[in-house]
Parts: sequence; structure tokens; C-alpha cells
Amino acid sequence: MKRSVQDTPIVFIGAGNLATNLAKALYRNGFRIVQVYSRTKDAASALAQAVEAEYTTELSEVSKDARLYIVSLKDDAFVELLPEIVAGKGDALLVHTAGSIPMSVWEGKASRYGVFYPMQTFSKQRAVDFHAIPFFVESNSPEDTELLKAVASVLSEKVYEATSEQRRSLHLAAVFTCNFTNHMYALAADLLKKYDLPFDVMLPLIDETARKVHELEPKQAQTGPAVRYDENVISKHVEMLADEPEMQELYRLISQSIHRLS
Amino acid sequence: MKRSVQDTPIVFIGAGNLATNLAKALYRNGFRIVQVYSRTKDAASALAQAVEAEYTTELSEVSKDARLYIVSLKDDAFVELLPEIVAGKGDALLVHTAGSIPMSVWEGKASRYGVFYPMQTFSKQRAVDFHAIPFFVESNSPEDTELLKAVASVLSEKVYEATSEQRRSLHLAAVFTCNFTNHMYALAADLLKKYDLPFDVMLPLIDETARKVHELEPKQAQTGPAVRYDENVISKHVEMLADEPEMQELYRLISQSIHRLS
Repeated sequence: MKRSVQDTPIVFIGAGNLATNLAKALYRNGFRIVQVYSRTKDAASALAQAVEAEYTTELSEVSKDARLYIVSLKDDAFVELLPEIVAGKGDALLVHTAGSIPMSVWEGKASRYGVFYPMQTFSKQRAVDFHAIPFFVESNSPEDTELLKAVASVLSEKVYEATSEQRRSLHLAAVFTCNFTNHMYALAADLLKKYDLPFDVMLPLIDETARKVHELEPKQAQTGPAVRYDENVISKHVEMLADEPEMQELYRLISQSIHRLS
Repeated sequence: MKRSVQDTPIVFIGAGNLATNLAKALYRNGFRIVQVYSRTKDAASALAQAVEAEYTTELSEVSKDARLYIVSLKDDAFVELLPEIVAGKGDALLVHTAGSIPMSVWEGKASRYGVFYPMQTFSKQRAVDFHAIPFFVESNSPEDTELLKAVASVLSEKVYEATSEQRRSLHLAAVFTCNFTNHMYALAADLLKKYDLPFDVMLPLIDETARKVHELEPKQAQTGPAVRYDENVISKHVEMLADEPEMQELYRLISQSIHRLS
């Protein structure tokens, strides 16, 4: 019987939003997840159960027999736990999933290592379609880079090699396009709540704003008072935010930034 | 033959992004656009041709015979030109399309007036599907409010009455969800260009960020370094933006705002 990439036994270190979505997607696609580690029992057991794996809350009890360890922890926890994570993993491949941690973090600590970064926003409550998610992979050997590309290719059609520097830039850009964008939604939601208006009416606008940049460059797609430099509207809006000084300051700065970029 | 709402002859005052999209949508749905006014000949004639209408660049030559005048000008131009716009329009219905101008702007200047506000981002280069666009209408008589609802209902399934105060709040929220969001895309695009990376790789993330808030409240949907308060990543990102002081300041403020709201 031909061995397939799915035969690689995988351990997940971490059971957060990214790990949960990634482990489930790998499991659905025939990969064998042997164990899940998380500091908290609830998270570890919930994910383990979903992917038919064992679980542990002790790093010292993490299996030494897997071939691929996918480490998906908060960045500072990862750096702190690194010595324990690599201990006894011999010649298995260890990868982390963080946009902003360079591959060199593994240097001198493991023999085979790399990065496996799916650039997407993951929440446990929501299953994500992996087909269109870009994966950026990197490792310290051509063979392992190929292995990581093969694993990612089972899930997605968009698999790229990227250096740590490229990935760092992608991650910073992703913070703007995703986290900061979502925060604009959140500020609007708070505002509408204050005026007793439903957030749902914003959804067609949110969708169209996202769709537009598939066709137009963001700069070309811009509309509204700031790009028109409609001082009348801008000053009325600033006034309306008088009792929300933080939002008011953001309104001013972002409007200035739009005007300057246009 | 039964008269339908489409028989109402319409004049467009303004031929910008919103007027262009709205006039074309009305035209496609069987309305008769009789004339288009714009200060610039190119804009007036381009839109007039697209909707089989006459055009003029002189407000004094705007037809007096239409039943509905849709005024879609930059806010300050509208206020300035208002006396000329209303002149000789007798008992026709005059509406503007601005989110932030109260209906009272017409008071004492026209006998039948109102507001016809489609809440969407419009660019001339891109045709928009009107079905899901929320329309907010208002007028100074119940009959005209019904007429405006009937006109909007030909285009969209989401037609609401809204007071000027509600509309003003919706417009402010729309600036956050659309214009400011789009600016986050634009800043990311500039950043990626600097690092010679394609903006296209951001599209799946942008799409998912928009889709997510159909299911989760924006606050629940938030991910990334700011909501996790991952100081390690945040300070690295701030450092990366050292030669972009404006973006750096926005990064800091928005991250703080995310953290405070969470």
C-alpha cells in the first residue's frame, strides 16, 4: 500500500482558535491527530475529542512518537515553553503557526523545524473553509519544505513558500485588513447600539466594501466624506462623537490619513 | 392602462458615484429618467447617455416638468445650490440622497420634499446589486413617504423609514464600517507594495472578516495580537512601522482601542 502524506502522525501543542480549526480540517481530510496538548483541560479535551485524539495538559507527557508537531500557542507562551516543547522529539519535524515569529526561533534547539502559517482569522465558534486560505510554509531543509507544502496542499489550493521576513510583513498587513477592520465594525456596532439601531443593516455595506477590492485597488475603491474632503460632514461627525473621545480621535486621524493618501 | 410607480418622470441633479449607480438601477427597472444635470459636461453626458436622458450643465435649464427630482451632490455644493435647485419646481417631489443632511434643509424652500438614502459604497467603475441595499426614506407627507418606499421597493427588498437623526447615525456608522475599513485595506496594500508582496493574498482574509460578522458580533469575532494583548507581537509591529509614523500612530491607537473594548 502506498504511503500518503496523511499517514504522518501529528501532535498539536495548543488548542486555541487556530489549532482548533487547523486540527479539525486536517482530521476531516484523513490525517491522524494522535494527541492534543493544552494548558487547560477543557480546551485540550474538547479538541482531542473532536479529532479522535488523546489529550494531555502536561508538556512532559506529550508523545515522543509523532512525526509532525504543530505548535500553536500565544507568542510569548511559545517562546517560554520552547525548551520543554523540543525535549525528546528527536528527529521529528517541529513547526509553529505564528505569523510574527521567525523560523530561527528553533535554531540550535531542534534538528528539523519550520513554520506552517495559514493566514486567516479563526474563531472556535465558526468553521472556516480552508480551500481559499493561503498557507505560507518554510523549513530548514528542502525535503521538509516539500512535506509541509504537501500537507498544506491537502487543505488548500494556495500554498506558498515564504521567508520569515515576508511572513512578518504579511502578518502586519493582516492585522490591518482583518483585526483593525473588524474593530471598525465593532466601533460601529457600539455606536448603533447607543442609537438603538440594529447592526445587521450594515452587512450589505460591509460585504460590498470587501467585494470591491477584488476588482479595484483599495485606494480607487475609497468613497465617503474623507476622500471627498467634505469638511461639512466631517465636522458634524466629529461633533457627534463628542462623548466618545477615543472614537473621535480615531475618526480624525483615519480621516486625515484617507485624505493624505488620496 | 394601470399607472405604475415607474411612470414617475425623474430628473437627476448630480452625476457622481451614487447618482450614476442609482440612475442606472432605476433605468434598468423601467423608470424614465428624463434629464441629468451635472456641473461637468463629461459626467452629465456620460450618465445621460447610459439612461437615455437629456443632459444639462446649467441648473437654470433643468426641466420643470418632472415629478421627482433626485439631488445627489457633494454636501456643501447641495446647500449652496439649493435655491437654484428648488426654483420653479412647483409641486414636484424633491429628495436628496445624503446620509448626513437632515430633511429640514428643504423646509420653507419646497412644498414636497424628502430623503432617499441608499446606504452603500458606490463607484462608477463598479455596478452594484441593489437587491440587498438598505434604503432609508423620509418625507414631509405620508403619501410621499409611501411613494418613495414604492420607488425604493422596485430596486431593493430592504426599504425602511428613518428619521433624519437615525439616518445621521447610520451614516456615521457607515463611515466606520466602509470608508475606514477600506482605508485599512489601503494601508495594508501600501505596506505590501513596499515589501514587494501582492495584495491579492489578503482577499480570503478580507472576505472571511466580513462573513464572520454575519454570525458573530464584531467584538466576539475579534482575533489577533491586540485582543490577545500579545505585547511581544505588538511591539515588533510598532517597530516595523518606524518609518511610517502615521501608520504607526494608527496601529498604536487602534490596538489600544481593541484592547479596551475587549
